[in-house]
Amino acid sequence: MNIFLNELSQLLDVAGVLSGKATAAYCLDQRRRYQGAALAVARPRSTAEVSAVIKLCAQYGVAIVPQGGNTSLCGAATPDTSGKALVLSLERMNRVLKVDSDNNTIIVEAGAVLAQVQAAARAENRLFPADWAAADSCRMGGALATNAGGVNVLRYGNMRELTLGLEVVLPNGEIWDGLRGLRKDNTGYDLKQLFIGSEGTLGVITRAVLRLYPLPTAHATALVALDHPAAAVELLRGVQAAVGDRVTSFELISKPCFELLAKQCPSLPHPFKPLPEWAALLELSDGGDSEVLSDQLAQVLVTLDCENALLAQNSKQARDFWQLREHIPEAQRREGVSIKHDISVPVGSIPDFLTECGQELAAAFSDAAIIAFGHLGDGNLHYNVFRADKTAAIYSDEPMVNDIVYACVAKHNGSISAEHGIGQLKRHHLAKYRNPLELALMKRIKQSFDLAGIMNPGKVLLD
Amino acid sequence: MNIFLNELSQLLDVAGVLSGKATAAYCLDQRRRYQGAALAVARPRSTAEVSAVIKLCAQYGVAIVPQGGNTSLCGAATPDTSGKALVLSLERMNRVLKVDSDNNTIIVEAGAVLAQVQAAARAENRLFPADWAAADSCRMGGALATNAGGVNVLRYGNMRELTLGLEVVLPNGEIWDGLRGLRKDNTGYDLKQLFIGSEGTLGVITRAVLRLYPLPTAHATALVALDHPAAAVELLRGVQAAVGDRVTSFELISKPCFELLAKQCPSLPHPFKPLPEWAALLELSDGGDSEVLSDQLAQVLVTLDCENALLAQNSKQARDFWQLREHIPEAQRREGVSIKHDISVPVGSIPDFLTECGQELAAAFSDAAIIAFGHLGDGNLHYNVFRADKTAAIYSDEPMVNDIVYACVAKHNGSISAEHGIGQLKRHHLAKYRNPLELALMKRIKQSFDLAGIMNPGKVLLD
Repeated sequence: MNIFLNELSQLLDVAGVLSGKATAAYCLDQRRRYQGAALAVARPRSTAEVSAVIKLCAQYGVAIVPQGGNTSLCGAATPDTSGKALVLSLERMNRVLKVDSDNNTIIVEAGAVLAQVQAAARAENRLFPADWAAADSCRMGGALATNAGGVNVLRYGNMRELTLGLEVVLPNGEIWDGLRGLRKDNTGYDLKQLFIGSEGTLGVITRAVLRLYPLPTAHATALVALDHPAAAVELLRGVQAAVGDRVTSFELISKPCFELLAKQCPSLPHPFKPLPEWAALLELSDGGDSEVLSDQLAQVLVTLDCENALLAQNSKQARDFWQLREHIPEAQRREGVSIKHDISVPVGSIPDFLTECGQELAAAFSDAAIIAFGHLGDGNLHYNVFRADKTAAIYSDEPMVNDIVYACVAKHNGSISAEHGIGQLKRHHLAKYRNPLELALMKRIKQSFDLAGIMNPGKVLLD
Repeated sequence: MNIFLNELSQLLDVAGVLSGKATAAYCLDQRRRYQGAALAVARPRSTAEVSAVIKLCAQYGVAIVPQGGNTSLCGAATPDTSGKALVLSLERMNRVLKVDSDNNTIIVEAGAVLAQVQAAARAENRLFPADWAAADSCRMGGALATNAGGVNVLRYGNMRELTLGLEVVLPNGEIWDGLRGLRKDNTGYDLKQLFIGSEGTLGVITRAVLRLYPLPTAHATALVALDHPAAAVELLRGVQAAVGDRVTSFELISKPCFELLAKQCPSLPHPFKPLPEWAALLELSDGGDSEVLSDQLAQVLVTLDCENALLAQNSKQARDFWQLREHIPEAQRREGVSIKHDISVPVGSIPDFLTECGQELAAAFSDAAIIAFGHLGDGNLHYNVFRADKTAAIYSDEPMVNDIVYACVAKHNGSISAEHGIGQLKRHHLAKYRNPLELALMKRIKQSFDLAGIMNPGKVLLD
């Protein structure tokens, strides 16, 4: 290993290799569930350097853990405890290379931070629509490797839909240049699709061509009280019928979320008194004028008989509504530890899922509290289970809670990971909830790209 | 082979196997460039029957040519001349299985005709947006296998973006059930992406879950005269900035197209006198009222200083405008044979591509006439070359014309097949214009799925 580290240090500049205590931050995941150890951290500055590092790893059989902003919620970007893997951080390849307004594309390095990409697009009067809580710290390579989602998927799609081209360094160090910026390209197998969402197990994404959109100038936001999730589905379809893709976000929030916010984040504005059983937070965006769009939204809500709807009167109030939604995870953290799920089912099955899963959890855990919220428009809920008895080690209940939740997801032909991926956290669940043929096909692909098994081992697939 | 045919006939009903003359229509491609021969045509009625047929083929090493509506423009769905391959027609698996309005999805069998899928969606007040010339005869399996495009890609994407789940029979007869209807699902490698666009070389698509959208109730259509393609790109971006994704189609038409239409299709309405150098045909769609949307479009066109713009006053006039666009291929056929290209470049590069490629062709062929039209919004042109001297065998010029056109495409980092795929027609071009590593990766995937090479041999990749 000393020979390997020696050769590694010759490939990169003095800041290019970290070892010892300097690797600590790269070895602990965002949720602090996985404390690993690394042989070293390599921090290349170019695709050629990434290639050289990977070739060296292939030569010595050293495992590679690609890492962007280290914001994975599933432990996908941190090494195991062996201390034998090299963390390959893309943080120094962090440039936005080009914004092309005519083609509506942006070319970025894998280490560019999401907020930086959004800002570069905005500076050219364009929108890069991907957006989620970690926007200020996550990096595009990780976003691509997990096919990340967020609050604008309803209209603009996941990272997969936002990607036109990729450059990837393969597990043998070869560089695949698929950095095309084309809307249509039917020339053989679409290789980029394999790397998007593969969580660094097939290669290291180094650059990407991403889609941009016209920058909306009008926004309209409403918070609508509802009796039942079925009313939310109905509202979604009604608003979409009226204004189509101008519905950018459609989020569902349950009463326990509002209660938790009132308790843990009392300084936020709390517009509903009394609290509704459910609420939908929806946002429209468009060219033109916000006042016109807000009037249109108001009219649609009247037409759809929404009796208890709050329409944001200005951008400040819209921010206030969003603050509520965005503070739910923080309120949860303050309350204590919860067992989290990032699930999806067909949009129309959300009401039944909530009823059935809630009943089953209540039967098994009489003191279970459920914090359900998320991207109803995509059929994606963050479905988190609290126990009132905070002295109990909640994680001991996790297997049983997971079994109940995921069985209910499976019953509705849903997904155990809608947007966070598999990483280390859900490998065993993946093996349980996807059928043997699918798992065999995935392994076949893994083996055909990474026979030696050096790319992010122990992630996604069980060995 | 007699034993194989005997066993095959036992797997299917009496109408399930065609042989001899009855196979003729399945062996000639839509453009009549490829006349092949088949051992037989199998016409299964269920996924289980498809599986049984493929297992039999695997056992006897018989090549399989999957076929839907046989509308490939690249000879992707017809067999070679050996007479040893089995055509596997999905035409009897032609049902729309379910429309789910809450989830905005439709489940179809591979043999369902596109127009039938559109109609089933419309009956539930939903839009299935895929649309192109062969809508009345192409089948969804083929549309998926070629990742087909059409006139609404600008807003809704190709078949890839419209697909949520697939069922596929693999080359060994195993059935992969990936028939999920989820908007978000990050659980391992996205297997369906491999089969979409693989032109039947990795497996046979038998069912699919496709996305639906709200059915637009308002339409606005305009035909705008322009001096130059650069003005079309500017117009596109201006209209999108104002009305966003309500721009559903944005087509470019050149003066020679209008001249050809006037000559060959004189009964059509010809609104421009004199003919402009270029024109853009654009369509907006939305919920609400057509009159409101048309007023909005009119206002946008005034703001963008479009001096010679015709706004359709009613749906009849809108149809008239579209008739012009849609009759260009027919007008070409009446004029004579042309050398066709289905290319794409980054949208902003369209003007340079047209100038440069036009000059190079004119230098090489003083009598070359260029019919350029297509989906400017996607950077996709149908770029067809005529020779005035119709007595010459135009196809003898094809290699040289292709070399000029594709070199110009490559210079702009474009694609030699934007939406039609590779099939037999462009295998050699694919080998020339994609880099060796990409071709090697494609072959690796092909081999890992179809080691025996029985799935649509001779298509996409060279042997």
